[in-house]
Amino acid sequence: MASSKASSNCVLSVDLGGTNLRVAAVGEEGTLLERVEEPSDARAGSAVVLKKTAEALKRVAAKVQGRKISGVALGFPGIVDPSKGIVHRSPHFPDWKDLDILSFFKNEFPWPVVVDNDANLAALGESWKGAGKGLKNFLMMTLGTGVGGGLVIDGKVFHGDRGFAGEIGHLCIETDGPPCACGSRGCLETFISATGIRRLAEISDQVDGREQMLAKVGKPLARTTMKDVFEAALDGDIFANTLFKKMGNYLGVGVASLVNVLGVETVIVGGGVAEAWDFFIEPAKKELSQRTYEETSRSVKLVKSVLGTDAALIGGAAVSFA
Amino acid sequence: MASSKASSNCVLSVDLGGTNLRVAAVGEEGTLLERVEEPSDARAGSAVVLKKTAEALKRVAAKVQGRKISGVALGFPGIVDPSKGIVHRSPHFPDWKDLDILSFFKNEFPWPVVVDNDANLAALGESWKGAGKGLKNFLMMTLGTGVGGGLVIDGKVFHGDRGFAGEIGHLCIETDGPPCACGSRGCLETFISATGIRRLAEISDQVDGREQMLAKVGKPLARTTMKDVFEAALDGDIFANTLFKKMGNYLGVGVASLVNVLGVETVIVGGGVAEAWDFFIEPAKKELSQRTYEETSRSVKLVKSVLGTDAALIGGAAVSFA
Repeated sequence: MASSKASSNCVLSVDLGGTNLRVAAVGEEGTLLERVEEPSDARAGSAVVLKKTAEALKRVAAKVQGRKISGVALGFPGIVDPSKGIVHRSPHFPDWKDLDILSFFKNEFPWPVVVDNDANLAALGESWKGAGKGLKNFLMMTLGTGVGGGLVIDGKVFHGDRGFAGEIGHLCIETDGPPCACGSRGCLETFISATGIRRLAEISDQVDGREQMLAKVGKPLARTTMKDVFEAALDGDIFANTLFKKMGNYLGVGVASLVNVLGVETVIVGGGVAEAWDFFIEPAKKELSQRTYEETSRSVKLVKSVLGTDAALIGGAAVSFA
Repeated sequence: MASSKASSNCVLSVDLGGTNLRVAAVGEEGTLLERVEEPSDARAGSAVVLKKTAEALKRVAAKVQGRKISGVALGFPGIVDPSKGIVHRSPHFPDWKDLDILSFFKNEFPWPVVVDNDANLAALGESWKGAGKGLKNFLMMTLGTGVGGGLVIDGKVFHGDRGFAGEIGHLCIETDGPPCACGSRGCLETFISATGIRRLAEISDQVDGREQMLAKVGKPLARTTMKDVFEAALDGDIFANTLFKKMGNYLGVGVASLVNVLGVETVIVGGGVAEAWDFFIEPAKKELSQRTYEETSRSVKLVKSVLGTDAALIGGAAVSFA
């Protein structure tokens, strides 16, 4: 594909998550040309993380051949003001506070820079090249280290009054539930994110099941990842399976609330956790149908992201090319 | 006012709630000219309620003087498809199912008829003449027999894909909470509506406090209304006061989720329960601020409806005049 468009433009796109840093060059046709993925080192402090991101961008830029780089697109989790290019805070990067991302990257690169919340970019990616193609309205949910959301209304991301719309990870589904990094309790994120799944394992009273799973995984719970649990489930582990079922129930509770509020027919689920789709989708759909009016449950489509963990990278390019 | 505009138009506007039927003639300047209010007899069945509504409209029409009636606007609670004029269901009118409201009222009256969800109309009323004036985006919450919502985006009501957006009463804030008329559990409506407040009284373990309040009210709990509790609170009753505080906490939990998801800065609270504003607003604001990021809590404005229980009547006129 790249060769047929050898003279066209590309965008350097970043998706910085709580666990992984993904950087890619994305062509005008929406395909990934070059790609780098490494740990995001979220706890290393903002200076380290930003430097690391800039270096990864430079490595990708150096590999781009036969294309003109036309811009840089940056997706960050948390409270982002896209109009100013500021990341106000990001729960998985504890020391981040009102970081002027736009200025930092403008100083590093000669190209125009756009900044937005990662889930908003994922929504645009799916709208351009994925499960949201041709849809006027939909909700994108990204289930990763945290839970993000991007709301597409009339084909565009709805940012709300200050750029913070779509923080669906902080929808409270248990008033007195577990404390969340945002300061509230019982947020959807504490149940259905990668870290939420580990928490569900932690609080489970199926002690033997948990120990058996951890024995297979070969790590203590604190270092067990969603991917480990997913692989255990694939391997037939019953406890891992139960965790995803439970997570699916909570996903259904959250989606029911979200479609009641937003009135969108399509909810696209992406992010790393969506890989475990087959293990959580049935309980999620069942819960969703029990918790919405028939008119709603009949029409709601809960679909898997087509672009997977590339969605935000592709969406960033869409914004930059626009 | 009416006399100065003696030759202008007016709209016959209906706000049918689970408890009250309100009908008014509304002038082009947004003022109520004639007004009728009576019990809605929700349990009497749809045929009776619709007949009653048509009769009230005719009584108001007969009183209109010196104005040309230009349309009929109808606000109904529940799942309404405004494009077809159909009320699919309405939890407080148990036998309503896919009622073709538009055809019914078109047969009764010679004027154009518009139908929408009551809270959507209330949002438009506040947008035209109330607390939403000049705002691009805001959320309207109506706290009555049930809880409704109207989401204004870019100055217009956002209806979602099938007209059902804004059903914020069915935001789940307690996964295993009390059963709701919608089929789910722990919906916001079960905590902060007029019926929710009665439920809070029912489940309270402050038995003596409840008995003392009921003794003052002079009715059994099943017949005690929000208005009774409000009057008891005004009269210094501690139990009534506690109920509104609790309701305020839950309101804050719900509003925090809603502003996280929707990213709107202004939330307008209306409906009959809003009368008790002074008793619930402080706990609501406290909870809201504890449950949102500083960036959000600093900017969110939780404000009281300006139009009160007239909001939907005035909003209906706004749609009809448009």
